[in-house]
Amino acid sequence: MPTCIFCDILAGLAPANFIHRDDLCAAFMDIRPVNPGHILVVPRTHATLVSELDEVTVGRILQVAQRVDVALRASGIKCEAVNLIISDGAAAGQEVPHVHMHVIPRFRSDGHHFRFSLAYFTRTPASELGKNAELIRIHMGG
Amino acid sequence: MPTCIFCDILAGLAPANFIHRDDLCAAFMDIRPVNPGHILVVPRTHATLVSELDEVTVGRILQVAQRVDVALRASGIKCEAVNLIISDGAAAGQEVPHVHMHVIPRFRSDGHHFRFSLAYFTRTPASELGKNAELIRIHMGG
Repeated sequence: MPTCIFCDILAGLAPANFIHRDDLCAAFMDIRPVNPGHILVVPRTHATLVSELDEVTVGRILQVAQRVDVALRASGIKCEAVNLIISDGAAAGQEVPHVHMHVIPRFRSDGHHFRFSLAYFTRTPASELGKNAELIRIHMGG
Repeated sequence: MPTCIFCDILAGLAPANFIHRDDLCAAFMDIRPVNPGHILVVPRTHATLVSELDEVTVGRILQVAQRVDVALRASGIKCEAVNLIISDGAAAGQEVPHVHMHVIPRFRSDGHHFRFSLAYFTRTPASELGKNAELIRIHMGG
């Protein structure tokens, strides 16, 4: 069975700098920070994708990230704003196959950007938006 | 009092293609999709920053985003993975000053990337991570 580095960290088998632990989630420093203060919020249950988690755990991830966001802004670490990011699958940039939310302090001169294709800079026709909305809406369940 | 486009959409005063509404949140199509199927999950309460929202609403945002993520993968819209992103403040790329989570379908050839500074590609010394963890941890509250 392949090991998971985040499961090892959560079990105390690999080192990390924790800033939070509760019954469902933990938060620790990313060892390759995009900016100083970059933190990962991780569910204690192993799951590769968000869809595999129960909704209580899913809610808790963003609740912990909110507290990290507030703490970062109070910490004295350079932080004018915060990105909260889950890459849910390899094609979205996920590198460790255990769900994690990045909480990244940002500031104006930090040099990080999203790079979008040129198509982003045009508005999409309402007809196409409506068609896609219908395709998604019928799968929303609940 | 300045108007907020998302408050107008939520109030039915501006058009949008909704895929979900509940007592705390709604989800509708982004009119400038990064990829087809790009959706925004928005709290019904006006708040510029995540820190201004109560924790129940915060949890609900990611719970709705989870359902959107699942629905996108089932919809037939091209979607190999999903990015879930909140830009919390202008320096993080926030354009509309009302909290929103982007739910973005991704696929390998879509041409979108994060662009990181070169500093990202080096590991940060454990001593610096530990120092930053301590600065953040003392502000995590309870």
